[in-house]
Amino acid sequence: MLIVKKFGGSSVANAERINHVAQTIVKSYKEGNQVVVVLSAQGDTTDELIEKAMEINPEASKRELDMLLSTGEQQSVALMAMAIEKLGYPVISLNAFQCKIYSTSTYGNARIKDISTERINNELERKNIVIITGFQGVNRRLDITTLGRGGSDTSAVALAAKLGADICEIYTDVDGVYTCDPRIVKNARKLDEITYDEMLELATLGAKVLHNRSVELAKKYNVNLVVRSSMTDAEGTVVKEDTKVERMLVNGVAVDKDVARIAVMGVKDEPGVAFKIFSLLSKEKISVDLIIQSIGREKIKDISFTVTKGEMKQAVKIIEDNKNSIGFDSISYNDNVAKVSAVGAGMATNPGVASMMFEALYDAGINVKMISTSEIKITVLVNDRDADRAAVAVHDKFMDAGMQIG
Amino acid sequence: MLIVKKFGGSSVANAERINHVAQTIVKSYKEGNQVVVVLSAQGDTTDELIEKAMEINPEASKRELDMLLSTGEQQSVALMAMAIEKLGYPVISLNAFQCKIYSTSTYGNARIKDISTERINNELERKNIVIITGFQGVNRRLDITTLGRGGSDTSAVALAAKLGADICEIYTDVDGVYTCDPRIVKNARKLDEITYDEMLELATLGAKVLHNRSVELAKKYNVNLVVRSSMTDAEGTVVKEDTKVERMLVNGVAVDKDVARIAVMGVKDEPGVAFKIFSLLSKEKISVDLIIQSIGREKIKDISFTVTKGEMKQAVKIIEDNKNSIGFDSISYNDNVAKVSAVGAGMATNPGVASMMFEALYDAGINVKMISTSEIKITVLVNDRDADRAAVAVHDKFMDAGMQIG
Repeated sequence: MLIVKKFGGSSVANAERINHVAQTIVKSYKEGNQVVVVLSAQGDTTDELIEKAMEINPEASKRELDMLLSTGEQQSVALMAMAIEKLGYPVISLNAFQCKIYSTSTYGNARIKDISTERINNELERKNIVIITGFQGVNRRLDITTLGRGGSDTSAVALAAKLGADICEIYTDVDGVYTCDPRIVKNARKLDEITYDEMLELATLGAKVLHNRSVELAKKYNVNLVVRSSMTDAEGTVVKEDTKVERMLVNGVAVDKDVARIAVMGVKDEPGVAFKIFSLLSKEKISVDLIIQSIGREKIKDISFTVTKGEMKQAVKIIEDNKNSIGFDSISYNDNVAKVSAVGAGMATNPGVASMMFEALYDAGINVKMISTSEIKITVLVNDRDADRAAVAVHDKFMDAGMQIG
Repeated sequence: MLIVKKFGGSSVANAERINHVAQTIVKSYKEGNQVVVVLSAQGDTTDELIEKAMEINPEASKRELDMLLSTGEQQSVALMAMAIEKLGYPVISLNAFQCKIYSTSTYGNARIKDISTERINNELERKNIVIITGFQGVNRRLDITTLGRGGSDTSAVALAAKLGADICEIYTDVDGVYTCDPRIVKNARKLDEITYDEMLELATLGAKVLHNRSVELAKKYNVNLVVRSSMTDAEGTVVKEDTKVERMLVNGVAVDKDVARIAVMGVKDEPGVAFKIFSLLSKEKISVDLIIQSIGREKIKDISFTVTKGEMKQAVKIIEDNKNSIGFDSISYNDNVAKVSAVGAGMATNPGVASMMFEALYDAGINVKMISTSEIKITVLVNDRDADRAAVAVHDKFMDAGMQIG
């Protein structure tokens, strides 16, 4: 089997952990597999490098930041290769330009465009374990780029897709995907399988196990993903197109507390107003999440939406600065909110799920501020102090209902 | 003018020094020059990385060590580019693979083979200040190599040669080349000019201002080298083919304390014995310096030579392990020795120099253990506790003699 294994920064934070991971890698190689490993930078390396940069120039160009940050992964792969050499197995480390991981030129948030697998395949044919820098690419000019948050997951999935790997294992500090964060909901349970779409909704909603871009990519190229623990040998959770088991009604409950709500009140009820607001925000790279538009009364309506807490003030300023061109009465905002979402592929065919969820929240006395639904997801916005209780209530409700009723 | 400037690790050790060097660079750019800058890794970065590697695998392959160490210079160039961006000038950092600095594959001690200057010239045409990683190259497979000790000097000179730079400025923590180490000889004076050959002898003899490979390369391609201070605006020392001033009798006195002496006694006085010893050592990459062979008596002779202190034990072991094939009576060794050398282009035409030097040492009551001479150099081996006194005595002798008598 050709296996791609990805380990995050905490798994390679120090010599001891590197040695531990080296053994995990070698074990798989000894079983007769071809092994490609993708690594993040060690522990806090990236943060330390950013701090160094900020000390010199808080407005450093993203091009030079990427030049700086990419050294973190290069150090990881070299150190890991040394650890595997010590165990006596053939190994080579490669960085993005050596594997020709080509990306767009959006420094700091580049997308992988293509990977030329010749070098990697050569090394695999020579029986080498191949250790590759995650999180980074090179653009057409061979300048170094980084892939943004969760980039190493994306690197691993892209490599798995391009190499035609049999499996792509994402090692994390949890042993799989849970029905909810076990720190919030004590009886949360590990899922054996989950579909790409469900994982995508969970990832987007703040379940930090996998980055959503990596899941999108896995879905697009049908990569067999497994989320498993770097500490234990537990089986993990398989993410794939269709789970063999019956479609779950709700497969997971996610909580995201990094949310702020902005309401723009008294805008004209005519086409293009929402577009104007969101294009202004998008120009400044502010991502908008839940959007709710009240039903217009007397040619006036309200538009509410959520952004991350860190971007709230900037978003409010942008809207206020453009008050004349947008046209509105007032703006309100607060960051004491959180999102609670229920995700399940079975939801699409079962209209009763939403009402079960609202019932659970009502029973727990939790006020719902906004609601948004997709085919396989229901999200509610609640006060952040209610978030954990809401997650428990929703989780329990569906657990009681068996959760697997499709 | 096209200027190549090289700054060492201590010049970029922290944000403050990086900002200081950024200003030096920008000053030169504002005067209308095209500026290419070569940097080493920050302060102790290389040592810290080696320590990390040793913790994981004391016998890590040199290939992976180079992969690890090369990140140090990449961090320096990115940080320097950020500092120059902050001053508002156009700048770009490039690493070895981006400049296509091709080297041999001798990891840890590679030699530059060629540099494709296209990218650098492009960036200069765009009016960019170009900041390049010293100390590193890529081999034919695009694997990263490092150039060994003093590698950044070599990178700078090679770039200056290949780009046809008008001048290559090596910034150090001293303000030029001195007649002797000022810490040893208080009345040592700074030279305005020195020839490549003199500099080469001084560099090889342990004057740590410039690495000998960089001087060799400068001589070969006739690169105008200047050694100057990164702290002051002082003029520095020009290293070039022929100095305009009269040839100095002695231009410098160097002390090298990293020396050990090995004597192999009672070898047969027949061809090939010396070759056998030195090829055994060379196979293990042990460099041999001064070599003296006693005059044979009764078909028996002694061979003495020097190595660095760190390699003494290994060298002795190699010779003892091969006692049968070499054929000798006994071996002795000690590392309480040091080399003191007088260097001057005028020496070649003045046979009195050697006797002046021995007179100085005799007057100071210093015993000479070995003597070696070249056209422009006389080296003596003395007890290491006598080394500084010997340097002062020799320096004073030639200073008294005017030092410029040719």
